[in-house]
Amino acid sequence: MLTFKNNKMINYGNRGMNLEYDVNLTNQYYMEKEIALIYKKPVPIKVLKVNDTKTRIKDGFYEQKSTLDYNGVYKGKYIEFDAKETNSKTSFPIANIHEHQINHIKNVLKYQGIVFLLVRFNKLNKTYLLSGKDLINFLNAYQRKSIPIDYFIKNCQTIELKYSPRLDYLKIIDIL
Amino acid sequence: MLTFKNNKMINYGNRGMNLEYDVNLTNQYYMEKEIALIYKKPVPIKVLKVNDTKTRIKDGFYEQKSTLDYNGVYKGKYIEFDAKETNSKTSFPIANIHEHQINHIKNVLKYQGIVFLLVRFNKLNKTYLLSGKDLINFLNAYQRKSIPIDYFIKNCQTIELKYSPRLDYLKIIDIL
Repeated sequence: MLTFKNNKMINYGNRGMNLEYDVNLTNQYYMEKEIALIYKKPVPIKVLKVNDTKTRIKDGFYEQKSTLDYNGVYKGKYIEFDAKETNSKTSFPIANIHEHQINHIKNVLKYQGIVFLLVRFNKLNKTYLLSGKDLINFLNAYQRKSIPIDYFIKNCQTIELKYSPRLDYLKIIDIL
Repeated sequence: MLTFKNNKMINYGNRGMNLEYDVNLTNQYYMEKEIALIYKKPVPIKVLKVNDTKTRIKDGFYEQKSTLDYNGVYKGKYIEFDAKETNSKTSFPIANIHEHQINHIKNVLKYQGIVFLLVRFNKLNKTYLLSGKDLINFLNAYQRKSIPIDYFIKNCQTIELKYSPRLDYLKIIDIL
């Protein structure tokens, strides 16, 4: 059985395999093999109340994410991405990406960072790497609420699920 | 009066100017002028208890940071750094840097990221950029508990405090 240093993983164990699980496993592999250093960002929490010694948080809430979930360094370059899943078999709903996140993707592109989404179609067992550029081009070109699967098939690389590394997305980055 | 979008700044207003305040102001300037995209990482919080609707955190604690406080993208490159202050006039205590952080700095260097500390000697009104490489070299060369001010004077670039950008550390990165 695979174990993790990052205790956040444990929460996902019960739910079975999912995209976030696969990504974390892959990042751990990249770190161990000294390929890249990629972290899941902590969830921003607005703290409203602490205890008297200020060691414990007694009230707070999750803040809305305005950036993507993962970032890090690969061959000196800045890399940032998010992992998104859909149960649709025909298209990926754009509502899955917050508007803040779309603006953030544009921003990272402006600074020549590597930015993308990993999009998994759960019921098709397919994971695609949708580059930030392709996403923005699609949004600019079409007034649609979702990206059809055909767009992924034509424009995006598939990432095969393997034993180790689980989801080798950097291989695709090397190609792009 | 200068205002901020990032509400974390407000907490520091009362305490008067400090290094973190200056860094946040500088990062905001870099963002507005489209020079770089650099964020303060959220503080990792271990959530122990949430309310019934899972919208509020009712118990939790701050986790120890194993990385540096700021990271982002500059000209496509990964950049990560921390801001450290000391009231000593003669040296910077190495105990100010957690061992986890030292390991992390070595790691970022391994992946060719730009990594450094901004070190402010409060009582000397001096802020130096100590590159990760210089820090690791010092630690390897000397068995000392602090880095003498002379080391900074001889090896590091000073960053002058200005109106805007407040603390132009990327100018030093361009030189290095």
